[in-house]
Amino acid sequence: MLATAGVVLTPIERESIEIADFGLGRFEELGLAVVVYVNTERVCAKELVLFPGQTCPEHRHPPGDGDPGKEETFRCRSGIVRLHVAGHDEITLRPGEQFTIEPDTLHWFQAGPDGAVISEFSTRSRDESDVFSDSRIVR
Amino acid sequence: MLATAGVVLTPIERESIEIADFGLGRFEELGLAVVVYVNTERVCAKELVLFPGQTCPEHRHPPGDGDPGKEETFRCRSGIVRLHVAGHDEITLRPGEQFTIEPDTLHWFQAGPDGAVISEFSTRSRDESDVFSDSRIVR
Repeated sequence: MLATAGVVLTPIERESIEIADFGLGRFEELGLAVVVYVNTERVCAKELVLFPGQTCPEHRHPPGDGDPGKEETFRCRSGIVRLHVAGHDEITLRPGEQFTIEPDTLHWFQAGPDGAVISEFSTRSRDESDVFSDSRIVR
Repeated sequence: MLATAGVVLTPIERESIEIADFGLGRFEELGLAVVVYVNTERVCAKELVLFPGQTCPEHRHPPGDGDPGKEETFRCRSGIVRLHVAGHDEITLRPGEQFTIEPDTLHWFQAGPDGAVISEFSTRSRDESDVFSDSRIVR
């Protein structure tokens, strides 16, 4: 899916793709694959890959350590993403479309029937501090 | 070149591609095209497109207004880029390869014989505060 979307990875990046199932053991339904390009103190960029119909469960990126929380822009690169952000109606992102999620705002998203590749541009990523609405989730 | 590299733009984005010649009037030699995806107070993401052999002239992103200066990661998406960063030997970026340039560090870069598409992930972009080594340059 990444190659089809025009994304070129180095061999090391291909080896280090993160497969996230959030500790729920239902990867085909609740999960995604993540390629982290860069994650400095100030800037993070990733590609998120979702298989058809796969969902990333609801969560938020809270403030902490003087940081107001992670700000994320999702840009759909291929496929369709349905994005649910607190305070907004459902947002549908098609290739070339994007949406910026403010810090500490609950959100979840689901790929359409062909899956999706999403470029994420954000402030520093601190996955371990994410707050999921489903308390069974372990990141 | 963007389409070949797998980059999908909306019609509005296609209309708003910035053609930068730095006020030098030698675009084929010294210039680039820029698509800005997002530029918030904290995060910026762009695609940079250089025609074959085109150069972006030497500059740096100085500190200001409490900001330590723009931090940039260049990720080569297609073609070849030769990147010159103060304190480093010449860096060659091929598709999937990237380099992070620290704030306030002089750098310039040139596309190889097939041109290049570069994804740039950075802190906020303030082009007007860039400092170019060639004082004739107007941004």
